[in-house]
Amino acid sequence: MASVRIREAKEGDCGDILRLIRELAEFEKLLDQVKISEEALRADGFGENPFYHCLVAEILPAPGELQETCVVGYGLYYFTYSTWKGRSIYLEDIYVMPEYRGQGIGSRIIKTVAEVALDQGCSQFRLAVLDWNKRAMDLYKALGAQDLTEAEGWHSFCFEGEAMRELAGR
Amino acid sequence: MASVRIREAKEGDCGDILRLIRELAEFEKLLDQVKISEEALRADGFGENPFYHCLVAEILPAPGELQETCVVGYGLYYFTYSTWKGRSIYLEDIYVMPEYRGQGIGSRIIKTVAEVALDQGCSQFRLAVLDWNKRAMDLYKALGAQDLTEAEGWHSFCFEGEAMRELAGR
Repeated sequence: MASVRIREAKEGDCGDILRLIRELAEFEKLLDQVKISEEALRADGFGENPFYHCLVAEILPAPGELQETCVVGYGLYYFTYSTWKGRSIYLEDIYVMPEYRGQGIGSRIIKTVAEVALDQGCSQFRLAVLDWNKRAMDLYKALGAQDLTEAEGWHSFCFEGEAMRELAGR
Repeated sequence: MASVRIREAKEGDCGDILRLIRELAEFEKLLDQVKISEEALRADGFGENPFYHCLVAEILPAPGELQETCVVGYGLYYFTYSTWKGRSIYLEDIYVMPEYRGQGIGSRIIKTVAEVALDQGCSQFRLAVLDWNKRAMDLYKALGAQDLTEAEGWHSFCFEGEAMRELAGR
């Protein structure tokens, strides 16, 4: 039987990661917002001072199976800083292809992020989820997460494009 | 007349920054969540690979005035990564002491963050605000920010403490 492995991404995974980033954005009904390229993912994640880190979930075929190893999920994170709690991790994206859900792959990615966080002296990790994505919300809550928007009223604000250039006077 | 300067924080500012972090958390009615120390702020922001960057707003007395230079506001940020838009900035905290509000100091901090973002090739910067903090929400919207929680339904989730250790099996 095929098995699933969670491992750190390598530069050669960037094509698969981009494919999954696009699938996730399509699922979130926000695909038009994806402007990233495979080249940018390579440069930004695998240089001297990487802007992000990434885990991938891959299916390993059983010995004798003809099927190739394939990447079916990912979790992309980076280190942030809380002025209340110090070093933290932000899990920017987590995604498992629909046909591989229900096997605990998402939970294994989240568990691996928790291990990295503790190993790196982080006291918390955060992520954002769309309010209509009940399945994801329920999973995170079942795993022990708190919904800070619901509990404390936090709203996420974004400055970009023309608004940002105007602010900077450019 | 006294004037206001926005500048990069130095290690020696960490005492003032911690004072303002605590004032901000008190204003947000979440002071009990502040666990950070001045030592951690020094180590995490001013080592070889800083976890955060910080701007401070200081009042410079006019020549001949006896008043000392004092730090009355700060903006603490770090670099993040959007899988849709690439390099980004997250403005973790922005705060101006109540008696110095209404002079545009907060807007100047935000404008400086926009300049840093553009200089560093970032296409956006984000921040979080509590839903009852109408004054801040109105300011950010007036400066061109979009409320992503309102517009798209993003909720912020957090794993920490016991939940995180359990996930990691520790």
